[in-house]
Amino acid sequence: MSQQQLYLGIDGGGTKCKARLENSSGEVIGEGLSGPANPAQSADTAFTSIVDAAKQALTAAGLPSADVSKINACLGLAGVNIPAYRAETEKWTLPFKRFMLTTDLHIACTGAHGGSDGAIVITGTGSSAFASVNGRQNAIGGHGFPLGDKASGAWLGWRALTYVLEVFDGLQPTSPLFEKVCALFNTTSKGEIVGKSLHYRPTDYAKLAPVVIELATDCDFVSQNIKKDGIIYLSSVIKRLKHLGAERISMIGGLASYWHDWLDDDLQRLIGPALFAPEHGAVTLAKHYFKEA
Amino acid sequence: MSQQQLYLGIDGGGTKCKARLENSSGEVIGEGLSGPANPAQSADTAFTSIVDAAKQALTAAGLPSADVSKINACLGLAGVNIPAYRAETEKWTLPFKRFMLTTDLHIACTGAHGGSDGAIVITGTGSSAFASVNGRQNAIGGHGFPLGDKASGAWLGWRALTYVLEVFDGLQPTSPLFEKVCALFNTTSKGEIVGKSLHYRPTDYAKLAPVVIELATDCDFVSQNIKKDGIIYLSSVIKRLKHLGAERISMIGGLASYWHDWLDDDLQRLIGPALFAPEHGAVTLAKHYFKEA
Repeated sequence: MSQQQLYLGIDGGGTKCKARLENSSGEVIGEGLSGPANPAQSADTAFTSIVDAAKQALTAAGLPSADVSKINACLGLAGVNIPAYRAETEKWTLPFKRFMLTTDLHIACTGAHGGSDGAIVITGTGSSAFASVNGRQNAIGGHGFPLGDKASGAWLGWRALTYVLEVFDGLQPTSPLFEKVCALFNTTSKGEIVGKSLHYRPTDYAKLAPVVIELATDCDFVSQNIKKDGIIYLSSVIKRLKHLGAERISMIGGLASYWHDWLDDDLQRLIGPALFAPEHGAVTLAKHYFKEA
Repeated sequence: MSQQQLYLGIDGGGTKCKARLENSSGEVIGEGLSGPANPAQSADTAFTSIVDAAKQALTAAGLPSADVSKINACLGLAGVNIPAYRAETEKWTLPFKRFMLTTDLHIACTGAHGGSDGAIVITGTGSSAFASVNGRQNAIGGHGFPLGDKASGAWLGWRALTYVLEVFDGLQPTSPLFEKVCALFNTTSKGEIVGKSLHYRPTDYAKLAPVVIELATDCDFVSQNIKKDGIIYLSSVIKRLKHLGAERISMIGGLASYWHDWLDDDLQRLIGPALFAPEHGAVTLAKHYFKEA
């Protein structure tokens, strides 16, 4: 009896870990969903989440947990773009037959273009971009807030709050954005807003992003200026991806549709929908690297 | 025997607490220096540091610790601009006869102008400004990085590092600033720099500020652009202080002399040297509020 090969794709991020298990015929036979799997936050937690999601997928496929040793896996993880965290994960003794390690961006890009060359631009709480062309991969952004993440939700909220505090300081004129943000904080006291935002994380800033997006679509001058800066940045990113040889570019993430619609027509024409999910891309890479003759 | 009054000025910040003790005649009779006294970091630590510095000043004055109960104190503390932290300190049972609480900016401004009306602009690791005119006080900035602190050392370093990462991303042309920052990190690997700067605090960013200042004075285009943005911000702050009625403005902090020299001549003319230290300003306020008839 010839043994069926198992291919596992792992999409590991800061809040969850997704697993997709396929057989040699390309059929999905099981899926799994577990906790955080970003080695930059905790390598131990990431290890546990990955094994957990893999075993869930095996169970869903009606296979015993012991079959984990038959798996050819591709792990696409956040954080492993940083050499120190990549080194951590390279020490792992995972229970798989074989595994390859790459970034969450790489598997997302592979998924978005069904394994073909292309690029992605991600704008959610953070922002980043990635191109995979002729076997060469290039990442843009993803440096972590406040160093990177331009045009992200965190960046939009941070820009809004910076402006609001400068209104309190008498350095900027007031505007609908000022009023809306104060209403969200339920105060017109600068001290209270400074106190509440003192330990803000990217996800906290990102909660203000919808206000900026809404007012930028209306005629609020300040929000429109923030939007313009975001468009300038994303336009330069898309031009860079094209320069790297990407002919198909997908925009992914919670803010993708807004930014897409705000881009100039000539850049919009470069954008196509993402075909498959990141964990699908991870399986594609696993098959590519571990295909038996 | 008429009892001599004791006036204590406390300058409490994130790293240290300074005390200055004067008698009714305005003579300094003792000084003290202790640990952190920023209630936004730890109200308990701040309490301990303040009492410690006060007792040091008494000892230096040859007075018994028990005389702490005879002290009229003004505490100028970082963090108490935020209502939540101010409320914490208002619960304190300090061992002084009487005390008043205000911000570190207020005592610095009072010291800088020898108790007269005026304003200050502070640029060190952080940035902020303050005006005290006709009994009215107004603070500008001091919202904490990355929301505020424009033109500060942290802001200069953050701008430099953001630019360097965009060079790695192929979004900006290289420059002497790129080369100098890479040399400081002792690497030309984007991943290594991202990894090292992932958890940077304002003081870490500020270590890159001297490079920007040096290159802005030379002919580096990128550093000059960063400098220009800082000048625009500080110019608007100084104009705002003038609008608030400040006729004498002092620039304080590690970066003050650079920014001063980069300002337009008409703004430079508004700037005068700081006359006295913040703890001196705190004593001035203590005397003003608690002067016996």
